Amino acid sequence: MNRVITISREFGSGGRTIGKKTAEALGIPCYDRELLEKIAKESGFDEKYIQEAGEYAPGGFLAAAFSHSATGPNNADYLWNIQYKIISQLAQEGPCVIVGRCADYILRDKADCLRVFIHADMDFRAKRIVEVYGEREQSPEQRLRDKDKRRAAYHRFYTDMKWGHAQNYDITLNSGRVGIDKCVEIIKDLY
Amino acid sequence: MNRVITISREFGSGGRTIGKKTAEALGIPCYDRELLEKIAKESGFDEKYIQEAGEYAPGGFLAAAFSHSATGPNNADYLWNIQYKIISQLAQEGPCVIVGRCADYILRDKADCLRVFIHADMDFRAKRIVEVYGEREQSPEQRLRDKDKRRAAYHRFYTDMKWGHAQNYDITLNSGRVGIDKCVEIIKDLY
Repeated sequence: MNRVITISREFGSGGRTIGKKTAEALGIPCYDRELLEKIAKESGFDEKYIQEAGEYAPGGFLAAAFSHSATGPNNADYLWNIQYKIISQLAQEGPCVIVGRCADYILRDKADCLRVFIHADMDFRAKRIVEVYGEREQSPEQRLRDKDKRRAAYHRFYTDMKWGHAQNYDITLNSGRVGIDKCVEIIKDLY
Repeated sequence: MNRVITISREFGSGGRTIGKKTAEALGIPCYDRELLEKIAKESGFDEKYIQEAGEYAPGGFLAAAFSHSATGPNNADYLWNIQYKIISQLAQEGPCVIVGRCADYILRDKADCLRVFIHADMDFRAKRIVEVYGEREQSPEQRLRDKDKRRAAYHRFYTDMKWGHAQNYDITLNSGRVGIDKCVEIIKDLY
């Protein structure tokens, strides 16, 4: 079984940056946006739609997802199956870092995973998302609360695991307190 | 403000050992059983009773604790006040490691804390508690589930923070996967 680093992260915590830097330092690939591209190619859906279906569809997605037992599989379930297949394949191809997309759950019996969760305080994240993603009409705090809620609900729905619960990870780090480069160093060292 | 390492831990995860070893490596004191002694001395209660009141009283303690708003302070509240005072004093005296007893919560505005949570899978902990504490009539798994439930309830009652929730800590580590000595190394390095 290949050794894989899975990174779950709160929005704005720098989890994606930590994944990229760790992969670079280890000389292994990091799948983040690349995953979206692959899922888009395989499903025929637009990348933007997939991203929103997974995390950020105002209103519609969760309601649709939660109804699947009554109405049969829907788009969200269809995407989940493709995602499941692609992540399993990537882990089989070789060591890598996978950011988000419930990879920790999908690979639980398929790879030797180092399961990481990155989080940070609201202030740190609010400052960071304005710097990285720019200003929006919505306040940064409101955007963060929305994203957190959606990611937790998505994770819970498909994995039945509590997102952010320490017991589900090998290591969790507060990137605001520890620092992004130190997080990279620790994860690299543990791998 | 002094720099303090607070270690919350699941029973059997080796959190206490990690605390002791980290303190030794850093040349600072570690308070664990010493805390019980201090609370006993200050309160006049027996150490055994204090330990059980904090974590492991079959039946009685939690019921008593949860009734305090109706009946005024009880023994558990009285002990909590003493514990609060002693932990605050220790943190004022100098850098140290404090294991358990909600020190992370008590010191949140009083010290510069590195907040650590140590956990491990059931198998690792079951094996370890039999080695360290010996066999009992109760199965190790049952003892662990009991302890986990009580610690979580105690923590929740007095701090209103979720025990084991990654967001409450700077770092959480699975000692079974990471290894006890590696945990010590990482914590020491972060401090």
